Amino acid sequence: MLHTLSLLVRNHPGVLSHVAGLFTRRGYNIESISVGVTENPELSRMTIAVGGDERVVQQIIKQCQKLVDVLSIKDLKYDESITRELAVFVVKTPTNQSRAEIIQIAGVFNARVADMSETSIMIEVTGNQRQIDSITRLLAQYGIEEMARTGIVALTFPSKRKPEDSSERE
Amino acid sequence: MLHTLSLLVRNHPGVLSHVAGLFTRRGYNIESISVGVTENPELSRMTIAVGGDERVVQQIIKQCQKLVDVLSIKDLKYDESITRELAVFVVKTPTNQSRAEIIQIAGVFNARVADMSETSIMIEVTGNQRQIDSITRLLAQYGIEEMARTGIVALTFPSKRKPEDSSERE
Repeated sequence: MLHTLSLLVRNHPGVLSHVAGLFTRRGYNIESISVGVTENPELSRMTIAVGGDERVVQQIIKQCQKLVDVLSIKDLKYDESITRELAVFVVKTPTNQSRAEIIQIAGVFNARVADMSETSIMIEVTGNQRQIDSITRLLAQYGIEEMARTGIVALTFPSKRKPEDSSERE
Repeated sequence: MLHTLSLLVRNHPGVLSHVAGLFTRRGYNIESISVGVTENPELSRMTIAVGGDERVVQQIIKQCQKLVDVLSIKDLKYDESITRELAVFVVKTPTNQSRAEIIQIAGVFNARVADMSETSIMIEVTGNQRQIDSITRLLAQYGIEEMARTGIVALTFPSKRKPEDSSERE
């Protein structure tokens, strides 16, 4: 089962390698990770997608909680949270027809064409993991020259938040 | 000066903590990092934003190149690459007027309202770092309950790519 862990951490050098190390030492591969600052420049939010044995994930959560730079960690529930990801692709367009087809695919996914050359096209798209996986497979047919995915960010929906959620930053 | 490093890495446990460790050991704080799989499930792309002394960044790049799991590392030029970031915010809406104002701000940034409750609103937005910084400051006036930023992803624009760029996956 895929877990989405949301951590609020102090923006210190070393916190990322500490947290990543907890997973590595168990031979766990982090599927995706994103780290960005919050409105408080001293705090960052880290979102980690990780699959695997339930018990081991719970152990890792407990160990993360012991790290002094980890202020909170939540195991987000799938149906109570938004999970979004951003991806940018450069795809080959050997023919004008392939370019037209790719622009059409982009339209279906509400993706944006960010640049084009004679031989390739750059597409930017936002969605959940399933949507990004789908457009990746569709574009791969044409030949992906380069791609980058941010890794997911996830937050509990306001309509699903419990009163204690809002106290995490205090 | 802010550097945007784009790494293509083998999707092995440990590669993230190795790379992060190179920065930590020099007391460098990674400003943002995003790691996501590519169309080849064995490879991930890592995008790291890091500021600081030019010489030290060049040293870190050299050391990254020596890691066996790092297949390529590029220091992307600002004017030749797209840099995009995704952010999700939960903002307080104590009054109907504040909700209306926030929806208006969201419109200016082409942001999407992803959910609402009686007391808060969830906003999802994509942009470059400056745009995300701007909307963060604007929303902070209302009180941000929670936020998550992916960290940037960056790729060279197709129209600025050099022939050798496309050979990096071979």
